[in-house]
Amino acid sequence: MSDFQDLISKLKKKNDSKIVLLVADGLGGLPLEPGGKTELETANTPNLDALAQRGTLGLSTPVLPGITPGSGPGHLGLFGYDPVKYQIGRGVLEALGIDFDLGPNDVAIRGNFCTLDDAGSIEDRRAGRISSEKAAPLCEKLNDIKIPGVEVFVRHVKEYRLVVVFRGEGLGGDVDDTDPQATGVPPLDPNPRNEAAKKTVEVAQEFLKQARELLKDDRPANFLTLRGIAKRPDIPTYEEVYGLKTGAVAVYPMYRGLARLVGMDVLDAGQTLDDQCSRLEAAWKDYDFFFMHFKYTDSTGEDGNFDAKVQRIEELDAAIPRITALNPDVLMVTGDHSTPSKMKSHSWHPVPTLLAANNCRYDNSTEFSESACLRGGLGQFEAKYLMSLAMANAGRLEKYGA
Amino acid sequence: MSDFQDLISKLKKKNDSKIVLLVADGLGGLPLEPGGKTELETANTPNLDALAQRGTLGLSTPVLPGITPGSGPGHLGLFGYDPVKYQIGRGVLEALGIDFDLGPNDVAIRGNFCTLDDAGSIEDRRAGRISSEKAAPLCEKLNDIKIPGVEVFVRHVKEYRLVVVFRGEGLGGDVDDTDPQATGVPPLDPNPRNEAAKKTVEVAQEFLKQARELLKDDRPANFLTLRGIAKRPDIPTYEEVYGLKTGAVAVYPMYRGLARLVGMDVLDAGQTLDDQCSRLEAAWKDYDFFFMHFKYTDSTGEDGNFDAKVQRIEELDAAIPRITALNPDVLMVTGDHSTPSKMKSHSWHPVPTLLAANNCRYDNSTEFSESACLRGGLGQFEAKYLMSLAMANAGRLEKYGA
Repeated sequence: MSDFQDLISKLKKKNDSKIVLLVADGLGGLPLEPGGKTELETANTPNLDALAQRGTLGLSTPVLPGITPGSGPGHLGLFGYDPVKYQIGRGVLEALGIDFDLGPNDVAIRGNFCTLDDAGSIEDRRAGRISSEKAAPLCEKLNDIKIPGVEVFVRHVKEYRLVVVFRGEGLGGDVDDTDPQATGVPPLDPNPRNEAAKKTVEVAQEFLKQARELLKDDRPANFLTLRGIAKRPDIPTYEEVYGLKTGAVAVYPMYRGLARLVGMDVLDAGQTLDDQCSRLEAAWKDYDFFFMHFKYTDSTGEDGNFDAKVQRIEELDAAIPRITALNPDVLMVTGDHSTPSKMKSHSWHPVPTLLAANNCRYDNSTEFSESACLRGGLGQFEAKYLMSLAMANAGRLEKYGA
Repeated sequence: MSDFQDLISKLKKKNDSKIVLLVADGLGGLPLEPGGKTELETANTPNLDALAQRGTLGLSTPVLPGITPGSGPGHLGLFGYDPVKYQIGRGVLEALGIDFDLGPNDVAIRGNFCTLDDAGSIEDRRAGRISSEKAAPLCEKLNDIKIPGVEVFVRHVKEYRLVVVFRGEGLGGDVDDTDPQATGVPPLDPNPRNEAAKKTVEVAQEFLKQARELLKDDRPANFLTLRGIAKRPDIPTYEEVYGLKTGAVAVYPMYRGLARLVGMDVLDAGQTLDDQCSRLEAAWKDYDFFFMHFKYTDSTGEDGNFDAKVQRIEELDAAIPRITALNPDVLMVTGDHSTPSKMKSHSWHPVPTLLAANNCRYDNSTEFSESACLRGGLGQFEAKYLMSLAMANAGRLEKYGA
């Protein structure tokens, strides 16, 4: 634990309060022109605005100023974990993204099918972007690889991408990629970065040897490279840090996986925001804390579709009454990062954040927007402190010192 | 020292400036209803408002977001010490609270008289809340306990509560409580949490053995439990960090003790704010820095008495002209934490803070209030940085680097 989480963990106490963290992925935006409005400011959001009036606003910095986070660090910050301390390897994120239940003894790897020429050099790093139909059976073939003392799992992701997991005692995660990031050269040998990774390298070498034999007639996918070889971070659970019994209501596997990483129960969330609200209602009595995730504010931003992002924010707004009807003691609405449609990508901009609770200090906000959040009572703060504010507002922290 | 204090200590320089830190305990508040005003916003404070116009405002986070501090960490933060790094044990705070002058070789303990049954199990953890009249002579009896190589002090606090201090070389502070927090079981043995605490445990065992004999006929107070066994933190003094000669003008023992902990001279402050101002005037030439403490903004908040807190703030405001008449180079008005009367308790909310000095950057504030502080020039900042701002404004810090 970080010192701060250690402090929170010592101060935590239980009560009957309910906390909801509603994450609109990539919520923050930018105006298209100077003086213009952001997506959130353009959207008609009567329910969020009403919530802003009885809550307090602020801008959350996902990691540190200027840092654009991926979904992993973005969510770890919101969950109260220092996203610089706890790093999630690419292989782990890829495994979480296909709902693979990673254990503490698992090494997760992102695999890419590639094409080797007769001399064994890489001709195409993505095997001609082979179709999913053709790649999936190859993954099944690789899944039959047996290595003594280790369980091997191979799962297809999409096109040339796959996930490989080695499960066994004593496997370290710090192994260099075998992808040379170039063509005309052979794949690299897996290289251990420390003592603990040596056994993993032996396993990887054996895996690659068998894979080369199994795939030799499957050109263009006649071999694979291994990338982002990593174990999941050794991370304290929500129960350990906050004493909270936690349910995640997320549709997309990546976010379900991130929730599982911190020990949340991952609930069946259906496919739509309506499904998610129904699940929230059904599970309301069973948990202290709910993490709800809404993906489309990010994907429309990534598409550079300003109007579609506005629409998705309005869709989110329409779901708010079903959440507030449950009377959560603390309701937070925020994002894991900004995804301005102007930039068609994640960005570093701080994220509009709303916290509504009985004892929050009102800040005269009348709407939920980037500009109102800039003047809000929470100020600008690092995302990792949002959970301690939630715990305080829920009455779940003892006084520190006498 | 923390890295930051180490830096300040290297940059400090002397001049003839005078700095006043006026702490209104628990100053921050909450409105009773959305859109309403806090206690400070309700109070009529012409003098503080005038000071706000020629000063700069901000909101101070006592420890970290969401953390509700006790008086100890609240003041350490204002004094510029990292309140997470320097922790003050319960026994130390209890000793400070009765004006006991704790030295670096002292282990301070909060004692509770308790009732043992014939089998030696605890029947009542507070000895029937024995009256002060009956408990005081028992403390005097215990004060006669002699242990070779160690001085023993026993002081009555109130009703069943007392302070025990062991003074001697090589006594560590990390010893578990002997109070089992339950009845029907015997008191626990004192248990060392590390090597340095072993000698303290031997002393405590001998003390408890003699106490059991001395008190055996004093039912209901026929024994005592020991709690919060601790040494004062090894903390650099104000002279070491800031090069300031410092006088504390505080009425209540706890705050006099906290001032003494960081090496302040504790002055006779009388009983009222008027007395305190007179003392400040009389001592003005003798010190560089004055810490003035006003208790009643906290106690009225704890009582849940919104109107009384408003009145106490107005009382504080009325004292401002006597302070400004002395022309301090830097005058700060703040609190060690918030105590909203709505909550009847300390809280985590950031604390309104005012700093007036010749070279501060005005922020167009027209009043001293939570909402003005939210928009103030100091922004939201951790309390531990207030002292470096004061030093800077007093011209007492050299340039850092060339």
